[in-house]
Parts: sequence; structure tokens; C-alpha cells
Amino acid sequence: MFQEYDVIVVGAGHAGCEAAAAAATMGSSVLLITMNMHTIAQMSCNPAMGGVAKGQIVREIDALGGQSGIISDKTMIQFRMLNLSKGPAMWSPRCQSDRVLFAQEWRNTLENNPNVDFWQDTAKEILIKDGKACGVKTSLGIEIKSKSVVLTNGTFLNGLIHIGEKNFGGGRTGEKAATGITEQLVTLGFEAGRMKTGTPPRVDGRSLDYSKMEEQPGDENPAKFSYTDTKPLAKQRSCWITYTNSEVHEILRTGFEKSPMFSGRIKGIGPRYCPSVEDKINRFADKDRHQIFVEPEGWDTVEVYVNGFSTSLPEDVQYAALRKIPGFENAKMFRPGYAIEYDYFPPTQLKSTLETHLVKNLFFAGQINGTTGYEEAACQGLMAGINAHQNVYELDPFVLKRSEAYIGVLIDDLINKGTEEPYRMFTSRAEYRTLLRQDNADMRLTEKGYKLGLAGPERVEAVRKKKAEVEAIIAAFSGTKLTPEEINPTLEAIGTALLREKISLSQLLKRPQITIDQLKEASPVVAGLLEEYGQDSIQQAEINLKYDSYIEKEILLVEKMNKLENLNIVENFNYDVVTSLSFEGREKLKRTRPATIGQASRISGVSPSDISVLMLFIGR
Amino acid sequence: MFQEYDVIVVGAGHAGCEAAAAAATMGSSVLLITMNMHTIAQMSCNPAMGGVAKGQIVREIDALGGQSGIISDKTMIQFRMLNLSKGPAMWSPRCQSDRVLFAQEWRNTLENNPNVDFWQDTAKEILIKDGKACGVKTSLGIEIKSKSVVLTNGTFLNGLIHIGEKNFGGGRTGEKAATGITEQLVTLGFEAGRMKTGTPPRVDGRSLDYSKMEEQPGDENPAKFSYTDTKPLAKQRSCWITYTNSEVHEILRTGFEKSPMFSGRIKGIGPRYCPSVEDKINRFADKDRHQIFVEPEGWDTVEVYVNGFSTSLPEDVQYAALRKIPGFENAKMFRPGYAIEYDYFPPTQLKSTLETHLVKNLFFAGQINGTTGYEEAACQGLMAGINAHQNVYELDPFVLKRSEAYIGVLIDDLINKGTEEPYRMFTSRAEYRTLLRQDNADMRLTEKGYKLGLAGPERVEAVRKKKAEVEAIIAAFSGTKLTPEEINPTLEAIGTALLREKISLSQLLKRPQITIDQLKEASPVVAGLLEEYGQDSIQQAEINLKYDSYIEKEILLVEKMNKLENLNIVENFNYDVVTSLSFEGREKLKRTRPATIGQASRISGVSPSDISVLMLFIGR
Repeated sequence: MFQEYDVIVVGAGHAGCEAAAAAATMGSSVLLITMNMHTIAQMSCNPAMGGVAKGQIVREIDALGGQSGIISDKTMIQFRMLNLSKGPAMWSPRCQSDRVLFAQEWRNTLENNPNVDFWQDTAKEILIKDGKACGVKTSLGIEIKSKSVVLTNGTFLNGLIHIGEKNFGGGRTGEKAATGITEQLVTLGFEAGRMKTGTPPRVDGRSLDYSKMEEQPGDENPAKFSYTDTKPLAKQRSCWITYTNSEVHEILRTGFEKSPMFSGRIKGIGPRYCPSVEDKINRFADKDRHQIFVEPEGWDTVEVYVNGFSTSLPEDVQYAALRKIPGFENAKMFRPGYAIEYDYFPPTQLKSTLETHLVKNLFFAGQINGTTGYEEAACQGLMAGINAHQNVYELDPFVLKRSEAYIGVLIDDLINKGTEEPYRMFTSRAEYRTLLRQDNADMRLTEKGYKLGLAGPERVEAVRKKKAEVEAIIAAFSGTKLTPEEINPTLEAIGTALLREKISLSQLLKRPQITIDQLKEASPVVAGLLEEYGQDSIQQAEINLKYDSYIEKEILLVEKMNKLENLNIVENFNYDVVTSLSFEGREKLKRTRPATIGQASRISGVSPSDISVLMLFIGR
Repeated sequence: MFQEYDVIVVGAGHAGCEAAAAAATMGSSVLLITMNMHTIAQMSCNPAMGGVAKGQIVREIDALGGQSGIISDKTMIQFRMLNLSKGPAMWSPRCQSDRVLFAQEWRNTLENNPNVDFWQDTAKEILIKDGKACGVKTSLGIEIKSKSVVLTNGTFLNGLIHIGEKNFGGGRTGEKAATGITEQLVTLGFEAGRMKTGTPPRVDGRSLDYSKMEEQPGDENPAKFSYTDTKPLAKQRSCWITYTNSEVHEILRTGFEKSPMFSGRIKGIGPRYCPSVEDKINRFADKDRHQIFVEPEGWDTVEVYVNGFSTSLPEDVQYAALRKIPGFENAKMFRPGYAIEYDYFPPTQLKSTLETHLVKNLFFAGQINGTTGYEEAACQGLMAGINAHQNVYELDPFVLKRSEAYIGVLIDDLINKGTEEPYRMFTSRAEYRTLLRQDNADMRLTEKGYKLGLAGPERVEAVRKKKAEVEAIIAAFSGTKLTPEEINPTLEAIGTALLREKISLSQLLKRPQITIDQLKEASPVVAGLLEEYGQDSIQQAEINLKYDSYIEKEILLVEKMNKLENLNIVENFNYDVVTSLSFEGREKLKRTRPATIGQASRISGVSPSDISVLMLFIGR
């Protein structure tokens, strides 16, 4: 009934959709299996993409040739660049999405990919032969063959939903759970665990009093995620900000004894940095209020997402507490918040390609690896899809270094350190974050995406042009000097020290008070010099000129580290013969099987002395 | 947590949505409970509205002030007026819909009704006090109070999905079933039964070869459903026609022994007039082909609905057979067809308001009453919603006569005759079908809808204006004569007998060969006379003038019958005191409790002599 596919992707959330799109774009024949064709790319939680560190990931996905950036751009209802008051390494794009349009656009994108086929069913079992995944068996009992399998089951594996003292099976509210896969994988020797996540109640926007809240409009000149020619928003919808208070907290506390979190009914560990509201008032008992973001779910709908109010307390407690929030006095709920527990597989069981160590041709991406967040899921899907394709066609594995992308940091963290709680990305996780900026993801990654056959030639040409322009601007700024007469009036107006002799534009721009736009306005020379260049190139050159000392310092660090990264360890390396390794170090190394000394050095439990021993042994 | 609502509607399919919209528009506070906010108004089966007799129902819903017509118009991708070659009583509007837009538009419509609240949950139990429904208890254990309850559970009550030898619980594929309600109602004394329906596989339009099929485009000048100012389509998508063949049938037969239908695993009775393909080749073994309509599921999607190929045979048999259909040689399936069994309640347990006899304030609409079809469901929802509102505010029940609307025929059939198999509407079920045309639903019903507070004043004004125009045109046509000189050249061109003396326009128009458009073109007098009138009024006048003898005949019949209809039987009438009733007649009368002698006369098992006895007894 089915052809043999190159890649079967199980699950059609952010991870599954990116995986399917990537492998198919690169030329693999792909079958996307979803429990329900109507819920492809459903945003299960908040109607938003991006945010701090996460927005950078979306930009990276886009730069590589993934789809999340384009789809976010086409379906957003508000855009904001966060952290603009901080340095460019912290700038983070974020949008509010129209939930329905986002799902529609993804489905449309996948349908327009001739290499993607669809099958509505539930995967019950991985077909395995000689230790290699070779297809999937579904709940209809159908065996579908493939050369590799990507699992992106999200919260569906043995999903259990909790609201107060009630709980019931389900992958999301109103949907079924999936069973079978975990049980099989555990039999095969996989370690499985339980994690927990949660979602806030949805409320009726018609029942809110926005006059009691603070408006949070989109940016005046909204940017966007994709480096392609998607259009920025012409109109936007606002979000609203309000706060909990001690009355809200009091009411929530009345539900604590029925809380599945506090009673111990929920065994899985939840996301520390996306806690439930009961968790927040429990952990931060001294804080008398918490911020609530009131987010519209789309252009037209009255449904509203109560960001910051994730909860699994009994629904009547949710309701009573909600109504004490300013603006929510008459709030009507559409559905209560809930917690969900689901199976995940500690990601130390994965290679850096997201292939499992235990079963060849089997890849994991998204929440199944213990992560949280749409962006984290999407980028893993992308990498798993790429590597599934590379694997099928016996091409080089595609791995991003920690110095190349947040995506590299994420996967390196997961496979080496594992995670005890849902892993989400932060800028602080990236030691080279000055290099991993949202503005330069294209410069970092598009050539790679192009070589993979994922990013089209028009993308790589745009990047090459931008690179050339940036270099030209930097050269021109280094070689062009301004006289005190030319620029001092402007410097005086800005309130910065006046010049006494000529100075190059590049020197001048290093002053934190001065922007390239001001120079352009002040000096016809600068204006003329920049005339022919695009805004992106100008901004990029400005960042490079302004922060070159920081950037160079990090590049030196990267080079130093890369020496370790370039020391490969053969896949079947026998750690038992290295007698002077510590007991714990040996165990962790045998379990994680790092590909390089650099990777080995980041495994928790592997000591610096273990690394020295290893380096000596490997012959250096 | 919840206010006490006037009306709780359980289920948000065609019936539930119309019920909620109607009651809310009339002023009731309504809570719509749905298992999943994302699947409101999901078209479970074919992406189409209307059709023979069904299109008339959509027009009637619209004329009363319901929403199905407007929503169909806004979301259609093709429109055809069926049966244009037959008399106007057979003209039937039908459209193909964009499945996603249809659902979105319904949700939007409901969200824009300030009296409709939403709650995502599953109704498990009807709250009953003193024999009266007073709310609902949900699967979250929440009790929500209301003054009346409308159940529109569709195929969800103990839904069981069959594909070949496999079966699993579910209200639709990929969705959960609902339990609890049937069990409770049976305990209360309700009779419940099982019905069965089915749906064809969905296939990937990219895998079809349309060059081997026959194109079925939309009408050149597409009309629409609603009498309001919705816009007709400017562009349309085509459907395609192909046929099964003996090879297809051979392959299907190989699956018969695994068929849940033929093996007896399915106990419920399926829709006779919407049979599965295996049923067709089984019942009509001499036919060597059956028509297949290939229907696009929306403007952009590649998903295609294989109308005519409903089946619950094993999926590999479906697949192999499908691929022998011309154009389907390389077809890829998105999901297999399946059969679903579900609980229904024989509708003889209902009053003509769709309220149950057993439990006051409890209304049933849609498949729960044993019907099939979106339009049948929608109009029941509308009537149940109206009557739930009337009931709450102690207003007169709203019942349509068989002579007033297909909706009247449908409900009268259901409550008096019941149904052993899924009931669908046909023009042949309406004895006064010459009166119940798609073109005059507004003339028949909008005044009623307006009086109910359902249709707005602008609607009734448009109808009054149309009525006046029609009368004016008819008067003018009766009073205006054409001379042989004026019209004979045209008559000659048409090939109909020439005039020898003056004749009135109304006389001339009775000739079957002559249309009002031809007269208009031929005669400046006619053109001038019609100048100021709308196209709808002109068409309406033409139909009235052309068919007045048929129409008058039926009106006489209606009047005769109405005499019986106007003979009321009190609700608690004691049939036991009428000793000369037949045994069966008495039992049926006691069970159905007809409101009038007319209704009593249509109950199967009640003989004409029973009716005479009753009439004598009642005092006439």
C-alpha cells in the first residue's frame, strides 16, 4: 500500500513539520504520519514565536532554509524586537501569531512540497531489523517501510492530563494520547522518563476590561524573522499587561491541597523557567504580584491566551483567582489550564545528529528529547530531518558547533549534559553569544544550508552580496576620515567629546553614543558612502565596527576551543583500555560516546584530568 | 463558576451551531459545550452544502434567519443549481465548500454573537430535577445550570469506528467518543438504538490524473444560498467525475469477508441513499460501474474527497481498488474510509418542537434523532434552538407545517413515523413540493423568522418589497396585452404557434416554450414594464405566472389538510377512554401523542378509521 520512504516523520508539530520539510526539500521521499490531518502544526500552548534566545533560533532555522521563520512572518499579528536597549547579542525577535493561520500555512507549505506524503494514523511501533529502524507500524496495523524514522511525539506518549484532582489520558486537551512506542523502546534498552508541562486557561476576550490593563503594542517599524522577502506587518494587534495580586494568590493557595503538582500525583518534572502560577507563588512567596500577558489568539478571534497563568489547580479555583486580576473581573473561561505528563527519553542517548545510539536510522526531535518550546522543537526537527536525509544518502552528518549557532549549543547541551527538567534555550547557555546574533544568522549559516541543498541559491546569493557590502562599508569607514569642522556640531548636539583632529569613521563609530544613522545624517560624505548599500548590510557593518573587540576576543576563544573540537574520538573507542580514567568519567564517556575531545570535556562527570588522560592516549 | 444559562447546547456541529446561534440571536443566554474548540463546525464528511431537497433546506434556514446559508456563501469554492432542466420545484442549490474556511466562519459567527459563551469539555450527564432538564454535568465533574438543554451529539455517543476487522472508539477518526449520556437517558426510560454511517478515503490530489476524468465546473453565473447580500463567487474550483469498473468491484469483493458490514460486526443501520461502495456493488450486482465525484476540499489544499466511495473495507483493499479507477492509478491516500456506529434515540420520542416527551426542557437535534446530512442536522438545530428559547421565555412553540417548509416535513416525518435508518430529505417526501421551492423560501418563512426575533428587520423588508413587486408584475402582466404584430416574429423564431389576436402577457407566459427573458427582449413594452424590478422578483413572478394552476391545486390540498391540522388534541388526552380505537392505533397514539388530528393521521399504525373515531370523539 505504501512505497518504501526515505524518511518517515511521526508527529506533525513544530519538530515534525520542520523535519519533513527539510528532508523533503533536500530530496528525500517523506511520509508524515499524524493522528489528525486537521491538527497539523497546531500551536498547543501560546500563540507566539521567538523571544529571548528563541527568536535567534528561528532566525537560524530560517538561515539554514527551514520554514518556521517564513511561516511566522506570514501569520503573525504583532512583532517586537526584544532587548533593543541592550547590546545586539541580546536583541531577540518575537511575534504573536494567528493560531489558525499558522497551522494552515504550515499545512500549505508541506502540501506544496512534492516529496511530502501524508498519512493520518498513530505510530504504535518502530519496525527494526538488525538494530536498524526500517519503518513504522501503525494503530491500523499497517507496516510502512522507510530508510529512517524521525520521532517527534511531543506530549502524546502516554500523555496524562491533570486538572486539580482529576486526570485523564490525552496528548492535548480534547485529543487522544499515543501508546506503544515508549514500551517498545524501553524493551530495546532505552531509558525513558516523565516530564510535565502546563498551559494556562483560555478566556473570552469579550469578557475582559482592557481599560484596566496596560497596552503592549507591536514595534512601530516591525521587523520580521525571515531573511527572505516576506513582508513586515502593516497593521498589528496589541497585547495587554496586567498583574496578579495577593488576593489572587490567596485564592490559588486554597487549591494547593488539590494540586496534582504539590500532592505528588504528577511525577514528571516541569519547566523551571516556564512555571505554573502556583509554582511561582509557592517558590517566590515574598513577591506580591506576577505579570500576566494577555495575548490575542489571532486577527479575528475573541479567544485570549493568559500568558503567565499556567496552572493545573482545580478549574473552580482557577476561575475564582482569575476574576481577581484587574481587567478579569467578569472573565469567562473557554477552557481551564491543565498540566500534562508525558514520556521523554533522556537525550544523552543521542548522537549529535539526533540519531539514537541504540537504534540506527532512528532520530528523535522535540519534547521527546526533554526540551520545551516551539523553537527548540522546530530546530531539532530541522536537524533531525537534515541528518535523516544525510543518513539515507550516506552523506556527511550535519552538526553545528556551539560557536556556530544556538542550535549547536542546544544539541550539544542535550546530548552531553542531558536534562533533568524541560530544557529551554537562554542566551546565557551560549558562551559565544556575541557571535550568535539574530542579525547575522544568515552570514553564519546560509552557506551551510545551501551546501546541504536546503537553502536555495537566491538565499546564498543574497548573503554573499550582504557579506561583500559589509566588507566594503567597513573598508570605507576605516579609510575615510572626518574633520572636526565636519562633525563637531553633531558631536556637541549629542553631548559627546569634540574632535581636535581628523578621525576615521570606524574610530568614531566605536563611541557608544554614536550611531551610523547619526553619522549619515550629519555628514554628506557618510551619506554618499552608504547610498548604494542595503539597510541590513549597514546595520551589520555597524555592529561589526562597534563591537569588533568583543567579537575578536570571542573568535580567539572559539579557535582555542576548536582545537579540542577537532580532536576526534572514533565511534567505537574502547574506554576500558584507558585505565587511568576516573570511574564516573569512564561510565559517562561510554554512555555518551562523544565524537570529539571538545564534546567529551562538556559531559558532566568527565573531569579535566579525564580529558588530559584521553588526549594523551589519543596521541597528542 | 458558571451563570445559569437559558440554553446549553451540547455539541458544535451543524445542529449545535445553528441551535446556539438561533437561541442567542433571539435573546437567550447560551453556553455552547464542545469537546474541542478547534473542531467547531468541522465538516465530518463531504465538503459540500445543499443538493436536491437539501439545498431547499439551506434556503429555508436562511429565510428564517439561520446562519448556514450565509456561511456557505462566504466559504464556497463552487456553486451549481441542480435540476435546472426540470420544473422550479426541483431546482436545488448546491455548493462545494472550503472545509477550513467553513469551520472558521462558523466560529467567527458564534464569537460575534454576544449571547454565546463557549466551554471546552464533554457533557456526561443531563441534570434533571422534577422531570425537567436543568443543566449538564461535564467530564470535568462541573455542574452547569440552564433552563433548557439541546443535545446535538452527532456520531459521538459511544462512537465506534470500523475499518475492515479493526474497530476502535471515537466520535470521528482521530477524536474521542463520548459516553454517559446514552446510559443515563436509557435509565430514564428513553429508547436508544444504533445507527451507522461512513465516509470515503481522502486522497492526495497531486497523485491524481485529471486528464482521465470529466470536468464538472461550477455554474457560469453562480447563484448562492442566502437571501441576504452575500456575494456570488467570482472564481470557482471544478470537481471531476470518474467511474468505478468491474476490476474495482472485483478487488472490493475480495475484502467482503473482512467487511464489518457483511460480517455482522456492525449492528447499526446505515443510510440507504448514501450507501458504501461495497453496499452498492452488493445490492446492484448487475451495474458494472458507479459514479465517483472527485471533490476538492478547499481553495488551496491538495486534499480530495472521493464522493461515492464511502467504505469500511480493510484499508489495503480500499487502496488497491481505488487505484483501478481511471485517474487514480497512482493515487495516494491521506486516510482510509471508515464506518462509524453511534447511538441515536428514535425520534418518535419527541414533540414537534424537538423537545422530548419524557424530559421537559430537553431538546434533541441532528444525528441523535436518526437523521443523516449536514442540512437535516442544521435545520433541526435551528428549530431546537428556537424552541428552547421559546420554552425558556414561555412563548408559543414554533412548528412549521408540512405545507410551509421542508423543515416541517422533516420534523413531522421524524416524530410521527420515526426512522429505522438514517433519514435524509428528498423532494418526494414533500407532498406540497410545488409550494416548497428554493426560490420562495423567503416568501414562505422570513415573516415568521422576523416575528420570532431571529430574522432582522432588513430581511423582512426585503421580502415585503419582493412580494409587492411580484404582485405588481403579475398584475401588469395580466393587464397588458401584446398584439400579433408585436410578438409574432419572436414566436416564429422560437417555433411556437403565432397569435391571431391580442393576448395578455400572463396568458402568453403560460406557454412552456416562452420565458420572461424572451418577452423582455422581444417587446419594448415588457422591457419597460419590468425595468424597475429586481431579478429575484421577476423570476418569482414568472414562476407564479407559469405554474399558477399547479400551485393553486396544491394550495387547495393544503387548505383541506389544514382543517385536520387545526383540530388540536390536548396534550394529556386520554386515549384509553376512546374504546373503539384499534389496539395498535391506541398504542401508537399514546406513544407519539400527536398535537393535531392531522399529525395523528400520519402516524404509521393509526388507521383512517381510528382518525374518524378520534374526530367524532373530539366533537366534530
